Amino acid sequence: MGETAETLARVGNDAMAELCAKHRDRFPTFAAAVALTDVDAAIGEAKRAISELGAGGVQIFTSIAGKPLDLPEFRPFFAAMAEHDLPIWLHPGRTASMPDYPAEQKSRFEMWWCFGWPYDTSVAMTRLVFSGLFDRHPGIKIITHHLGGMIPYFDGRVGAGLDVLGARTSDEDYSQVLPALKRPHLDYFHDFYGDTALFGGRHGLACGLDFFGADHVVFATDTPLGPIRPTIDAVDRLGLAPAERHKIMAGNAARLLNMKF
Amino acid sequence: MGETAETLARVGNDAMAELCAKHRDRFPTFAAAVALTDVDAAIGEAKRAISELGAGGVQIFTSIAGKPLDLPEFRPFFAAMAEHDLPIWLHPGRTASMPDYPAEQKSRFEMWWCFGWPYDTSVAMTRLVFSGLFDRHPGIKIITHHLGGMIPYFDGRVGAGLDVLGARTSDEDYSQVLPALKRPHLDYFHDFYGDTALFGGRHGLACGLDFFGADHVVFATDTPLGPIRPTIDAVDRLGLAPAERHKIMAGNAARLLNMKF
Repeated sequence: MGETAETLARVGNDAMAELCAKHRDRFPTFAAAVALTDVDAAIGEAKRAISELGAGGVQIFTSIAGKPLDLPEFRPFFAAMAEHDLPIWLHPGRTASMPDYPAEQKSRFEMWWCFGWPYDTSVAMTRLVFSGLFDRHPGIKIITHHLGGMIPYFDGRVGAGLDVLGARTSDEDYSQVLPALKRPHLDYFHDFYGDTALFGGRHGLACGLDFFGADHVVFATDTPLGPIRPTIDAVDRLGLAPAERHKIMAGNAARLLNMKF
Repeated sequence: MGETAETLARVGNDAMAELCAKHRDRFPTFAAAVALTDVDAAIGEAKRAISELGAGGVQIFTSIAGKPLDLPEFRPFFAAMAEHDLPIWLHPGRTASMPDYPAEQKSRFEMWWCFGWPYDTSVAMTRLVFSGLFDRHPGIKIITHHLGGMIPYFDGRVGAGLDVLGARTSDEDYSQVLPALKRPHLDYFHDFYGDTALFGGRHGLACGLDFFGADHVVFATDTPLGPIRPTIDAVDRLGLAPAERHKIMAGNAARLLNMKF
């Protein structure tokens, strides 16, 4: 599986680089694909895509063939991306195969992507935080899809709620997870970046911007699944000062990608 | 299981009624427990609790022994509660037994309650809407925990996103789900009520209030798990006009419970 996935990633990255070269005015860079089923190969392909193809970072998924990103085996990849000082785009990845009810065999009515994807993002963010990622790599650039999943709306559950981590668990000892972190755990969630891909929703964008701050929100639409114009309209409805709006629409991306637009 | 659960519900309701009778100044009413594993018995116990014990409504869970609430077998219960014109408190119910990753056997780091519960609430709300509940019972009173789960933050995914329901599914035909509803599906989500139990979080409350409106938000704290004072502080931070604040703190509850405080 690793070799096939690695080959597909390479083919995809070559094609993206070709597209960017043809339309440099529209596509100044791209997010490379890697296959984390083989971590060493993924690190190699990330390096090739960034240094030879002009990729601006790498997109990965919240689970790697079903496994969580906080496993020690994936640490070298995060270390490599921190060294590149370029973003990791974090995309959720569950399918309908994860049921929503114990009595059902699959997720029905497309709940798996509607709510399951932001759920996956939230869990992945939390487990990366708990694993000490931001202590090992302060300033690592991780862009979370759908404006940080459930974190901004539920920062109370994440913060004060998870302060009692372990109190509802008897079969694993979580008592050392939070004490092992250098900062209060909720702090780290503000170190992530969130994109504006909320299908143009009317309520979440202000909430997410409030949580992440204008320096940590980047414009994205989810097109072709998410709509472009309603997403721009949603940003406009925020009534931001021009300097803040510019950060979200271009400035933050330029900073993250170490580019000048 | 049905008989035992029914007995436990009855014992619990009797004890709640006793507590309310002893401290009427603090507890004007209570939410009754029912065991929906036996729907007829649950309807009977709801009626007994409401008419004989003074219950103000009934709390149910988002899944009934693993089954979703939109199954036809549960419809008579919702019809009965609509007839009572009293609230259903909808509480999520998953445990650590539902894993977050295909490669894991259980939900680790307590993600099951932190994010899993709002996820369960969101899925249950959506499936109730899709089942036509609000068309069958306009004005049915359903109070959702944690301020409507993920709905307010992700109203774009719920609305425009699920407009294409069926496009990502090939093994079930969802093409008639939305056309069978009398109104655009997102409208119905505003018919739910949301409580303020967000662990005093700083960002979600304004977003949820924005979505539901001041007539559809009721004060709740999740105590002893959630904190009381920070939740009141979170309401205060909204800077509401006194009339709107009063609705959230007491007026909406009085209206829903058909009581005068």
